[in-house]
Amino acid sequence: MDVIEGGVCAPKGFMAGGIRCGIKPSSAKKDLALVYSHNTCTAAAMFTTNKVKAASVQVTQENIKDGKLRAVIINSGNANACTGEAGLEAAKKMTRCTAESLMIDPNDVAVASTGVIGVPLPVDVIEKNIAFLKANLTDDEQGHANALEAIMTTDIRIKEIAVEISIDSRTVRIGAMTKGSGMIHPNMATMLAFITTDAAITHSALDESLRYAVSKSFNRLTVDGDTSTNDMVLVMANGEAGNKQISREQRAESREQGAEIEGLSDFDIFNEALEYVCVELTKMMARDGEGATKLITVTVSGADCEETAEKLAKSVASSSLVKTACFGADANWGRVLCALGYAGADFNPEKVSVFFKSHSSEIEVCRNGQSAGFSEEAAKLILSEDEIEILITLQNGNAKASVWGCDLTYDYVKINGDYRS
Amino acid sequence: MDVIEGGVCAPKGFMAGGIRCGIKPSSAKKDLALVYSHNTCTAAAMFTTNKVKAASVQVTQENIKDGKLRAVIINSGNANACTGEAGLEAAKKMTRCTAESLMIDPNDVAVASTGVIGVPLPVDVIEKNIAFLKANLTDDEQGHANALEAIMTTDIRIKEIAVEISIDSRTVRIGAMTKGSGMIHPNMATMLAFITTDAAITHSALDESLRYAVSKSFNRLTVDGDTSTNDMVLVMANGEAGNKQISREQRAESREQGAEIEGLSDFDIFNEALEYVCVELTKMMARDGEGATKLITVTVSGADCEETAEKLAKSVASSSLVKTACFGADANWGRVLCALGYAGADFNPEKVSVFFKSHSSEIEVCRNGQSAGFSEEAAKLILSEDEIEILITLQNGNAKASVWGCDLTYDYVKINGDYRS
Repeated sequence: MDVIEGGVCAPKGFMAGGIRCGIKPSSAKKDLALVYSHNTCTAAAMFTTNKVKAASVQVTQENIKDGKLRAVIINSGNANACTGEAGLEAAKKMTRCTAESLMIDPNDVAVASTGVIGVPLPVDVIEKNIAFLKANLTDDEQGHANALEAIMTTDIRIKEIAVEISIDSRTVRIGAMTKGSGMIHPNMATMLAFITTDAAITHSALDESLRYAVSKSFNRLTVDGDTSTNDMVLVMANGEAGNKQISREQRAESREQGAEIEGLSDFDIFNEALEYVCVELTKMMARDGEGATKLITVTVSGADCEETAEKLAKSVASSSLVKTACFGADANWGRVLCALGYAGADFNPEKVSVFFKSHSSEIEVCRNGQSAGFSEEAAKLILSEDEIEILITLQNGNAKASVWGCDLTYDYVKINGDYRS
Repeated sequence: MDVIEGGVCAPKGFMAGGIRCGIKPSSAKKDLALVYSHNTCTAAAMFTTNKVKAASVQVTQENIKDGKLRAVIINSGNANACTGEAGLEAAKKMTRCTAESLMIDPNDVAVASTGVIGVPLPVDVIEKNIAFLKANLTDDEQGHANALEAIMTTDIRIKEIAVEISIDSRTVRIGAMTKGSGMIHPNMATMLAFITTDAAITHSALDESLRYAVSKSFNRLTVDGDTSTNDMVLVMANGEAGNKQISREQRAESREQGAEIEGLSDFDIFNEALEYVCVELTKMMARDGEGATKLITVTVSGADCEETAEKLAKSVASSSLVKTACFGADANWGRVLCALGYAGADFNPEKVSVFFKSHSSEIEVCRNGQSAGFSEEAAKLILSEDEIEILITLQNGNAKASVWGCDLTYDYVKINGDYRS
């Protein structure tokens, strides 16, 4: 697997674009994006588990029922959530005017929104500018760069990736972009992510692959514990790579044929690549968490099962006290043990060891539930890096899970003390 | 019921004291407190649900098994948690030296600790100073003021209360003090609280009364979502008021005797007073949350049951985004709906209304799940007050619950970015 340039435009047959249409009235920032496939795609998606669902989530859930899509229209600056019937009508209008402009079926258009909740969406400015957006579509670096810019809200960094794999002797590409900085907490995806691929793949295989990848990536991300109303992860596969269609049955077939054909089926290869893409986007989002200065990876190993490891790691990554200690580069490992303790998972506190790790070094701060007698200065140096790993071993089994988060800083408070103005 | 002065020294037969013994080496602050009863008390307590339990919690759980106590020794500046066998021995030493000094049974001494986790407790400085602390005991305003000061860590405000009720024609008093500012989240009590009363009461009645009061007060408090390793709420009743012993059976007896004797049994009167004491302490703690500038009360009404109302209210009060919006006085009601949505409780988003309320005025910001078309200026004025209520109505039943919390501010990050130094 190779990491390549091109984002969502890397796979064959996809174009993207992004423009400013005026949803963010007080800024000159782009606010409307479009991703389009030349032919109909097999599509799968996952949505927020929040009971309050944005209009865009409701409309896309309807349009993806047949497992087919050709385009997704995305606006930033307004979440179109808590906006009632008018909001639903506005989201439908977005899909209709996009479909008319592209001369495709409105049911093949997904819609996503991000921004402030509870404010009516000025759908007229979207309708007015849709032809302009269509004209802006390209399959080159301008296309994905514009689309990326147009889906950002409080995001500071751009977050995209593309990979190339070989399936059935064909070159298959997966491209992806994401937005997400605040209101991020593991429960489904808690952000917007759009993934394109030119793989030929059945709907059930694509759906399984997406669910698996999301469970190992976006659902292991936390910024502030708030699960948004607008989350959506969408993957569209247009088959232009020309590979023999990937299916769930391939895994079983390849196993029957034995180890001589490498053991990995086409489905396995695709799964691995999609998981990689989602995990990399997840790390990018954690690093770009609102106000964040550090990417924090919490890894729990030696657990009785993966579920326990994930639950414990999430509790540590979500703890305001652990997050502020990381911000202050304070090796307060007691807060790590405290957060493990209220996670609601089973473990023996007296068998827990904790390590702080950076790119260049590692220090054991807690051994068997007590201080390991470490150098505070050395620990502070590690915690001053912009990528930290908190490694926790339980001595209770062989299962392991990593969760991604960020520190809690003055800037988080600043950004969210007055987001709307 | 009258609110009176005197804190934990208000009930007859109790003394308290507080001194500096040197556990907080870098400050001149008091760090060791003692509450003592002239005779043996019926006692009940509740402890943290964190799997990582401080040594003090483990020792007190053991000593309170017989339902009897006479004294509680409390240190601040060191949590004596994650300190292994040495920590357990240190906690036992605290009870032993206290008992020797007071010439009572070590099993009648409870111990509580608060401060940094994972650092060995310098129990020798406690032993060295216990006689000095005993000499410091008084039953006047100096006693409870000194004890209060000695249990504080990052607390800024003192948090105590006392009430007087009449039971069996006798004057019965309840006094209480608490510490708690950070690492506070509803799951048991998440702080230390010590309650004294001169009521005569059976152990089972006292235990039931405490559990009920805690469920309506401390367990409805959140500061930062972190449940501490050291939480303890302790009530000691010495019977010096001379009332006929309160028992659980009185409620049933009084009901059998009919409404002519007012309907309220002695047990009911005591319960009501204890609940009042715990709720008032809870509000004081929320107001004194680390870095907090505001007390936020979240009330959910019109729920199908109290459990749903409490779950929804806790989700809103715990949301970092709601907390920062309150700090910034930004009427971002969409975040309230979002937090309701991920609470994991059942309700209809389209029937939700939200009001922001201060002492002097009230404004409807959301009606039936959408913007109520309110004045941003008027809402900002309300949110600029230092006590705010967020009222949420569900139109789904008659149950109601209130939860207390505070805003999330720069100072929370500052305090916790480097707590230990």
